[in-house]
Amino acid sequence: MRDRFLRACRREPVDRTPVWFMRQAGRYMPEYRALREKHGLLELCRTPELAVEVTLQPVRALEVDAAILFSDLLLPLGPLGLRFDFHSGEGPVVENPLRDAADVAALRPFEPREALGYVMEAVRTLRGELAGLPLIGFAGAPFTLASYAIEGGHSASFARTKAMMYGDTATWHRLCALLADVCAEHLRAQVEAGAEALQVFDSWVGALDAADYEELVRPHVAGLFARLRPLGVPLIHFATGASHLLTSLRRAGGDVIGLDWRQPLDEAWALLGQDTAVQGNLDPTALLAPTARLLRRVDDVLRRAGNRPGHVFNLGHGVLPPTPVESVRAVVERVHAATARQ
Amino acid sequence: MRDRFLRACRREPVDRTPVWFMRQAGRYMPEYRALREKHGLLELCRTPELAVEVTLQPVRALEVDAAILFSDLLLPLGPLGLRFDFHSGEGPVVENPLRDAADVAALRPFEPREALGYVMEAVRTLRGELAGLPLIGFAGAPFTLASYAIEGGHSASFARTKAMMYGDTATWHRLCALLADVCAEHLRAQVEAGAEALQVFDSWVGALDAADYEELVRPHVAGLFARLRPLGVPLIHFATGASHLLTSLRRAGGDVIGLDWRQPLDEAWALLGQDTAVQGNLDPTALLAPTARLLRRVDDVLRRAGNRPGHVFNLGHGVLPPTPVESVRAVVERVHAATARQ
Repeated sequence: MRDRFLRACRREPVDRTPVWFMRQAGRYMPEYRALREKHGLLELCRTPELAVEVTLQPVRALEVDAAILFSDLLLPLGPLGLRFDFHSGEGPVVENPLRDAADVAALRPFEPREALGYVMEAVRTLRGELAGLPLIGFAGAPFTLASYAIEGGHSASFARTKAMMYGDTATWHRLCALLADVCAEHLRAQVEAGAEALQVFDSWVGALDAADYEELVRPHVAGLFARLRPLGVPLIHFATGASHLLTSLRRAGGDVIGLDWRQPLDEAWALLGQDTAVQGNLDPTALLAPTARLLRRVDDVLRRAGNRPGHVFNLGHGVLPPTPVESVRAVVERVHAATARQ
Repeated sequence: MRDRFLRACRREPVDRTPVWFMRQAGRYMPEYRALREKHGLLELCRTPELAVEVTLQPVRALEVDAAILFSDLLLPLGPLGLRFDFHSGEGPVVENPLRDAADVAALRPFEPREALGYVMEAVRTLRGELAGLPLIGFAGAPFTLASYAIEGGHSASFARTKAMMYGDTATWHRLCALLADVCAEHLRAQVEAGAEALQVFDSWVGALDAADYEELVRPHVAGLFARLRPLGVPLIHFATGASHLLTSLRRAGGDVIGLDWRQPLDEAWALLGQDTAVQGNLDPTALLAPTARLLRRVDDVLRRAGNRPGHVFNLGHGVLPPTPVESVRAVVERVHAATARQ
């Protein structure tokens, strides 16, 4: 059933629980590593035939129920005027991070269909190649994109980001409004090109407490989801380390809330309410465990989901580079076998 | 009242809510930066007169209600046989991280009174210098120490640590038992030398879900606290990003549970129960905000604590390097002024 992923997002009955993986295309796959020996990460993202090839690698190797476009959250920062690259370990480094109001004022809005045309070209090609398997488009949410733009890379404390949030709140809101607009237009263009579902990654927003999130972030995320709603495709809203923000994330928007592994799926789902679908939430490190232990963890997630409509099986964060491909395959098989309905 | 910190740990009435700060001695202070220009971080830790001087810097500059020994979580890894240093940005790098059972078997138990004698010498000197202001000793908990020993430094995913936990559980337990023993003896020696309270840092344990914590970590932490209990000093148990583990941490031990900022203090305290004292939980980045916003955040923490016995004011994690000293001073003054009892 090619549409079980889309049906689960809409909380409709499915023949089996659908499964896909964040970073299902990536360094854990030998096919990917072979390509990366010849091409840089940004080159893979910016060359449609290579992005298509990488997107298809896990679809060929695994019986996943959705493909996710191979791309990177940071791509929209380029046309805005930020120069960045991925250094050793593939962590991003922004050469000219945002420091003040003047830097934010200098950011240039852009038309993603032109500036990121290679993304849409990859999406169009993939729709033909995927023969009905749903394709997920994605983008970074305002806080997470802003944190890369301000910190210049990953951060442990988000000190600079929060210093701007608190110290120059007007500039912070201007930046988030711009990033929400960029994100909305980028996602709309992906749907026009053929994406059938969208995931908004607010990966690092769990660094905020609920009061800060409500005041300084949720208005922008809510506005973003309001703009995505008319596109008519399922919307997934994902964050990590955000179990203290679950109800706020839900109110901000999304048909499906992506859960990390820290909170048991049934407890999170009870907080969110049964009119929300959920995605998750196997610990990515469980895939580094021996198979018996891994499968017990898979079974635990499935037991907590209880075969209720509206569960998309996934990890709580991306597949880790040292993950054995066989372990990923074993998860797909277990999810499908254990959830087969009559 | 020199003993308001110790009284609050024991949930006794106090004249004012006591306040101290994790990393209250550190890079945000000009006096510290001046010393660091002449001495490496490990040199500061290993030279008693320098460790004493750094410990006293915030006591002189701020009206804090406790001193915390200037030291580092990783020091006990040295005599165990691990070679490490602090590189740029002061992140630790372990030269010979633990990879397998043989590496763990090769670790050498040691007598902290000898191998870490410089720590105890600093503690003894401080007791004289502090004129009755309580001195907090500390050490890292087994999971957090193990993660540094296995990952070789900070980690985003704890992939290697968890791979050992899941893949070679017997070795994991052997390692944690050894580290719990090291931690217990190190803390006991600090109390013998004059420390009047102890904080156990399990800073990174929030990366685990509750089931893993209960199975693979809590037995070791519970054993550690059982060994510390007869020392008769208040025990603080601290973790970050661990709001999903609060009741497990409580069961593992501690008179005081140290909270990070993600969860409102009143909600966390309600979960823990009123027979536990709590420490926290101002977001360290709030100290980067303008004063008015900072003080609103301080007031919010105090309102949630509600002047109940058993609140030690602190941050949710350490003071960040770009923090203005004036902001730290403003927090101390606000906490004392706002909580003055008749």
